Amino acid sequence: MRAVGLLGFDVFGTVVDWRSGVARAAAPFLDRHRTGIEPAAFADAWRAKYLPSMAPVRAGTRAWVKLRVLNRESLDTLLAEHGIAAAEVSPDEMAVLEGAWDRLDPWPDAVAGLTRLKRRYPIVTISNGDIAGMLALARFGGLPWDAILGAEVARAYKPMPEAYLRSAEAAGFTAAETALVAAHNGDLAAARACGLATYFVNRPDEKGPNTGDRAAPGDWDVVAQDLNDLADRLDC
Amino acid sequence: MRAVGLLGFDVFGTVVDWRSGVARAAAPFLDRHRTGIEPAAFADAWRAKYLPSMAPVRAGTRAWVKLRVLNRESLDTLLAEHGIAAAEVSPDEMAVLEGAWDRLDPWPDAVAGLTRLKRRYPIVTISNGDIAGMLALARFGGLPWDAILGAEVARAYKPMPEAYLRSAEAAGFTAAETALVAAHNGDLAAARACGLATYFVNRPDEKGPNTGDRAAPGDWDVVAQDLNDLADRLDC
Repeated sequence: MRAVGLLGFDVFGTVVDWRSGVARAAAPFLDRHRTGIEPAAFADAWRAKYLPSMAPVRAGTRAWVKLRVLNRESLDTLLAEHGIAAAEVSPDEMAVLEGAWDRLDPWPDAVAGLTRLKRRYPIVTISNGDIAGMLALARFGGLPWDAILGAEVARAYKPMPEAYLRSAEAAGFTAAETALVAAHNGDLAAARACGLATYFVNRPDEKGPNTGDRAAPGDWDVVAQDLNDLADRLDC
Repeated sequence: MRAVGLLGFDVFGTVVDWRSGVARAAAPFLDRHRTGIEPAAFADAWRAKYLPSMAPVRAGTRAWVKLRVLNRESLDTLLAEHGIAAAEVSPDEMAVLEGAWDRLDPWPDAVAGLTRLKRRYPIVTISNGDIAGMLALARFGGLPWDAILGAEVARAYKPMPEAYLRSAEAAGFTAAETALVAAHNGDLAAARACGLATYFVNRPDEKGPNTGDRAAPGDWDVVAQDLNDLADRLDC
């Protein structure tokens, strides 16, 4: 296995459990407004708007905006689709919903695994989340990042090559010296195309039981069951 | 004293001792080339080129470049001034000299003070150093930053207002919610003009014994003797 000097992490789904956290934040709101929507289904529906919301930015037909702007627009659309008018929602309620993405629990192995990996490697985020969101998640969950890189620093959303390449370069490493750690095959495929090493982490329940991407040994440079298993495999 | 939610730190001089570190890295080189230059004087001479080197970027007459590019240009000039031709210096020697700014010891109180402050506040860099340099210093000295912000993220060098304002904004805070922690009155004055709170840290020996900026109680929102004293004053 080739030598790597920097570990860059996908965050949503790989390090933190966005589905449970968004559902938890939305539950009182959905109940109060008698929507009849299950909190987890609301989280899934919001998440389903994530890729389409980035598409114009990735295509270059819309100027760069941070993920929290896209998430807020998706929320407005989602509420409208369920017949909840913006005027019915108080600013405090909106703040709780928008802030859901800033208060997501790490997967149970994440803090311990990252702490072990950090002993040997610089650990940085290569996420589509913005800096403020990554900082808030780090504070909320105790994630010990060395630096927050990714989309906002690169001004490009994954899987655009610039998101990976500019993050590695900002940290002072070449693509070949950098590994992407992610639970998503598409993310890893894009990183591999840029020359990064690819470390898969299994998150089978990301969007509900047995919904996560799967990978077989050999599909990626490392295929790990969780971040502690990755630390084992990297001798950390 | 007003409530603050984010602490942004100047790094060179405030958190790390650049003079000793640069002198230590340069000493074998200066000896090997029989320059007769004292290592500390070499560090001071290199540092003296720092402000002039940024001037064209700040004035907008030169496109943005990272600090390591400016530091390398200053080094080339410095060596030439001392009659050392670039051709006499091996790539390995240059790498050691250039890397000096990535391997600087924290002041003795810095890691303990930052660790205490981090319990209560997000702690981020607002330095003119580039991300790779800040990351290297954090790894070298064990500096527990929550995020690396500052000039490269803002694409503006302090004391330009954008360096402070874009760093605070990227972290998700307003200027009024942010404090700059620095050992330099000029840096703090620029931050105050942008609306940041200002926390002075005394580093009397930054450029040699009794050379550091001084401040009296009341000059800034907090005047602290070191980062542990700052933690005391902020009830951390």
